[in-house]
Amino acid sequence: MKQTMAIIGLGLIGGSLALALKGFEDFEIVGVDVSQPTLRYAAEHGVGDRVTERAEQVLPQADVVVLALHPQGILDFLARYRDSFKSGALVWDVCGVKTAVMEAAEALPETVDFIGCHPMAGTEFSGVEHAFAEMFRDSHFLIVPRENSRPEHVALLERLARHIGCKDVCPTTAQAHDALIAYTSQMMHVIAVAVCDDPELFDCRGYEGSSFRGCTRVAALDVGLWTQLFSLNRPALLTALDRLLGNLQAYRDVLASGDAASLAEKLSRSAARKRQMDLPGPDLLE
Amino acid sequence: MKQTMAIIGLGLIGGSLALALKGFEDFEIVGVDVSQPTLRYAAEHGVGDRVTERAEQVLPQADVVVLALHPQGILDFLARYRDSFKSGALVWDVCGVKTAVMEAAEALPETVDFIGCHPMAGTEFSGVEHAFAEMFRDSHFLIVPRENSRPEHVALLERLARHIGCKDVCPTTAQAHDALIAYTSQMMHVIAVAVCDDPELFDCRGYEGSSFRGCTRVAALDVGLWTQLFSLNRPALLTALDRLLGNLQAYRDVLASGDAASLAEKLSRSAARKRQMDLPGPDLLE
Repeated sequence: MKQTMAIIGLGLIGGSLALALKGFEDFEIVGVDVSQPTLRYAAEHGVGDRVTERAEQVLPQADVVVLALHPQGILDFLARYRDSFKSGALVWDVCGVKTAVMEAAEALPETVDFIGCHPMAGTEFSGVEHAFAEMFRDSHFLIVPRENSRPEHVALLERLARHIGCKDVCPTTAQAHDALIAYTSQMMHVIAVAVCDDPELFDCRGYEGSSFRGCTRVAALDVGLWTQLFSLNRPALLTALDRLLGNLQAYRDVLASGDAASLAEKLSRSAARKRQMDLPGPDLLE
Repeated sequence: MKQTMAIIGLGLIGGSLALALKGFEDFEIVGVDVSQPTLRYAAEHGVGDRVTERAEQVLPQADVVVLALHPQGILDFLARYRDSFKSGALVWDVCGVKTAVMEAAEALPETVDFIGCHPMAGTEFSGVEHAFAEMFRDSHFLIVPRENSRPEHVALLERLARHIGCKDVCPTTAQAHDALIAYTSQMMHVIAVAVCDDPELFDCRGYEGSSFRGCTRVAALDVGLWTQLFSLNRPALLTALDRLLGNLQAYRDVLASGDAASLAEKLSRSAARKRQMDLPGPDLLE
């Protein structure tokens, strides 16, 4: 008998997972969404083996449940449906913040195994119509198991990650994950929007070089999503931003001092760090 | 009889100018450099109609002189050769800072016409071996004439800019130019190096997304060149950096306040500014 995997939320990520998971072992993929246009699009384009708006009907049968909603949506879903999951089920999520999600998952019954996940893939678009099966090709699949997570569920996620094309599965902690994301992703988005707040912005239109476009590309962000991501990762993001403010202030101060030798020495050190960062490493030589 | 245009400095920009200016009106293009390997490469690859290391021999005959040295090199060259230029000559430069260069040009005799220029093109490489004739295709050619600059010299630069493929010639002031560059280019480089100073940098290796790579791409910079560019544009860059620090601090503060509605409102405003910036404008519709 087929097993059931429910994907809650058929947006960009959930829709892409539904496409990429087609034919994964003996699972029937059931797409769940509250939006009728999304369900219609998914049904017409084969996003999932079948689709429904009735989460409460699918959950009691689902052996695996993927939460692919916006961050706050995941927290709300866990609170609302905490008693609807099948005993022995694996529940995992795809959220870009982990501490807040892992805390919310504490509310689940002990018979339900929750493993936090973050397939590190995406595009600047949203919605099922932008979903595609190759989304996860060569990306990292980060997992945050709980102390009592069952080894067979970790093994299942490893096979699943391979099936959708991820290059590796990296176990981490919620705290380490959130610090990584605060620095490498969220800080970049704060920089981009802060640069666009400059009163000179529109005077420079047409004169921006590639460095300006590279830095500000992500500023036209999905406000609802990023408000949630920033808010749910507040401690880690504040720590990262304070480090950035300090590092920028240090450059400002050495420039203001007029000491060109110290400025050169500082630039030399930073440029060397960037070059070191870009050297091919084990993962890049694969 | 042919006129003479001397290009002082056959690096990436000077070399590309020499290639792009081939066949421009009745000018013989003479490349000048102090490096023997550069001169050899230039002679072998047709970078200029002829090349020489003797600036003092070329200057008295040159009707037009282009200063394509590093910023400090331009200041030093103007000081050293101030009395060697031909009477009535047009001297122009390609430097990314203008106030410091225009001030240095004050030392020239009144018979020499100096017009500050900045063809907004380049790559992350340096040296004549990376020069190419198409470098300036579709770029802006900014010019900063002096009060007594001769109209026929401005007209000559306009024809020259067209010849090398620039999409327009934009007259501006040294102050406006330097403010533009401080914000759209220099600030991006300071951000990139400051982000790479973060102690978490190497822990994140292999997990950086496209936003991180886009923001930090320019961090592996030419230390000598950028020390000069930053130092020679100190007032404008400090002003821009102080605005950035204020805008980042404002995001930090609204995040710390825990007021998600205010954060969303702020993100919404910034994202709208970025979208407005990216709308096709007159210059992009050409």
